[in-house]
Amino acid sequence: MPPVNSREWLLRARPKGRPVDSDVELVETEVPAPRPGQVRVVNRVMSVEPYMRGRMGGEATYAEPYPLDAPMLAPTVGHVTDSADPTIPVGTLVLHDHGWRERSLVPAGEVRILDHDDLSPATHLGLLGIPGMTAWVGLTRIARLQAGDVLFVSSAAGAVGTTVVQIAKRMGATVIGSAGSPEKVSLVRDLGADTAFDYHDGSVRDLLRKALADVGARGLDVYYDNVGGEHLEAAVRVVNDHARIALCGMSSIYNSAAPQPGPNNLLKLIWRRARMEGFLLEDHLDTRAEFTERMATWIRDGAVRPVHTEYAGGVAGAWAAFNGLLGGSSMGKAVVPLVTDDGAPLAGVAGA
Amino acid sequence: MPPVNSREWLLRARPKGRPVDSDVELVETEVPAPRPGQVRVVNRVMSVEPYMRGRMGGEATYAEPYPLDAPMLAPTVGHVTDSADPTIPVGTLVLHDHGWRERSLVPAGEVRILDHDDLSPATHLGLLGIPGMTAWVGLTRIARLQAGDVLFVSSAAGAVGTTVVQIAKRMGATVIGSAGSPEKVSLVRDLGADTAFDYHDGSVRDLLRKALADVGARGLDVYYDNVGGEHLEAAVRVVNDHARIALCGMSSIYNSAAPQPGPNNLLKLIWRRARMEGFLLEDHLDTRAEFTERMATWIRDGAVRPVHTEYAGGVAGAWAAFNGLLGGSSMGKAVVPLVTDDGAPLAGVAGA
Repeated sequence: MPPVNSREWLLRARPKGRPVDSDVELVETEVPAPRPGQVRVVNRVMSVEPYMRGRMGGEATYAEPYPLDAPMLAPTVGHVTDSADPTIPVGTLVLHDHGWRERSLVPAGEVRILDHDDLSPATHLGLLGIPGMTAWVGLTRIARLQAGDVLFVSSAAGAVGTTVVQIAKRMGATVIGSAGSPEKVSLVRDLGADTAFDYHDGSVRDLLRKALADVGARGLDVYYDNVGGEHLEAAVRVVNDHARIALCGMSSIYNSAAPQPGPNNLLKLIWRRARMEGFLLEDHLDTRAEFTERMATWIRDGAVRPVHTEYAGGVAGAWAAFNGLLGGSSMGKAVVPLVTDDGAPLAGVAGA
Repeated sequence: MPPVNSREWLLRARPKGRPVDSDVELVETEVPAPRPGQVRVVNRVMSVEPYMRGRMGGEATYAEPYPLDAPMLAPTVGHVTDSADPTIPVGTLVLHDHGWRERSLVPAGEVRILDHDDLSPATHLGLLGIPGMTAWVGLTRIARLQAGDVLFVSSAAGAVGTTVVQIAKRMGATVIGSAGSPEKVSLVRDLGADTAFDYHDGSVRDLLRKALADVGARGLDVYYDNVGGEHLEAAVRVVNDHARIALCGMSSIYNSAAPQPGPNNLLKLIWRRARMEGFLLEDHLDTRAEFTERMATWIRDGAVRPVHTEYAGGVAGAWAAFNGLLGGSSMGKAVVPLVTDDGAPLAGVAGA
């Protein structure tokens, strides 16, 4: 088997604040044939993840920083085109983390064979992927959501948020969402939220109070935090007794060069005996099988609906997609389908 | 039985920021004989509690505000002198919440008969009282302290802090304490802390880092927070994976007229999957029997040592004691023994 041509993104510089174009470079490369224990994959769709911003920085966060001049890793779904591992036949749909690139050479131990391969590849990055499972774990294990709870989720039109809204409604909660544009607010309502607001329309504190009044609630039992900052302070202000705040992300500060002050009202956590807890998916992988089966059923039933923003341009479009994600232009899961410059799927194998 | 004379403190105005003398008044009153279902108590020792500051303010916190012109309530231990309830004989040592006053008329349902009445009355307000049990609940139920954990406690020379230090050592933790004077730091070390620092000696962040180095630890598994503010931010900065922050009090902001910014590094709670949780004793009263027996045993064994600051002046001294507590002059549990102007115990009954 000869090498095949591919393109991939390398990290060239560590961004300060908002990333700039010179921080990355798209390069041509060759992907050799697999050696024993490896597979070669033609990628179908790549993920664009907010946490990649953290990995581009040099400081250790929860994920290892990307080395300079190395490929930027992100979850990617593709079909195996060449296999030198007997457990992974050619044509298998797999998930791996081997880069923003068209074709990947991956050790067999680092691919996950995807069940439910009749569902679209992007679904495996969204509802069935990291954001979907993050929503599930945050709601069930961290917030311990109960039927009847009043839940607020920020960034409700995002990949995690759209899933939180839908799962929480299915679990019997009253759901309030916030988002950053009228279109996003409409989406959040369409997904079943009892009410939603655009956080540009006033102070989050006032908007959240009004939303609570609109749904006839006194306060929050659960806040699913994707943004931190003003949202977190506004939520702490209205927690009910024994409320749970699941800290999933703080997009309001990912691009800040300087630390931002935290909520000025944490004393409320004592008065209300409330809990604020950060979490990472990697501690909860034991729930993956249960989660996957439940979510796949919900998707097939139409009970939970995939929401994707597909960015154009194939691998070359990934950087614009990432900036679009950070700039708030995407709704639901942001993905980059891998296509030729003509928009056709990359050459793979028959039937895949 | 005739009425008896007593003195008591009334709230006259709601303080803004630091309380002032005109906010309260000591008045003479008469305490009538008990009617059926009541007991009359000569008080032996009154508590001075930080949370009283919150109840003096008009805003609902976790405890009801004191009404204006009503007695200021606080835990008080005394002997029953007159009983009109068959279950509470004269001479019984009881705990009640009926005010900063010399003598109290109390419904039988609102007194708690104290076991271990051979221990000093002040012990029932300290190690066996609210602060002792707060330390216990915070460590066992909120922080879920394990042997080998590295624990940091602020206000470590206070009523709760001195107990946290001692219990945590008994549970096998490495203990770091902070306090506000060299004398307090010495006390904290004497109580068994592995190291302690005076937070006036630099930034809490630097002092805490140095303390961690001194005990050979990388970070904190538990932070028992009594003060909030800079301490909380410094602790969040060095949490280990799966750390627990028990929010017990925020003395750094009780006297602030304006809200203070919170920790600027809550993102760390996500990276470290850490939990921050507020709690109130009232949710954990089911553990009182277990706590009381264990603590009484520790006291008798000498394994845990009572630390009291006794303020002079009898009931008239309570206001100065409270200001002393808020101003940081006390160590351990702040109490006011009730004595005559000559320093003698108030007249009670034979043997009590």
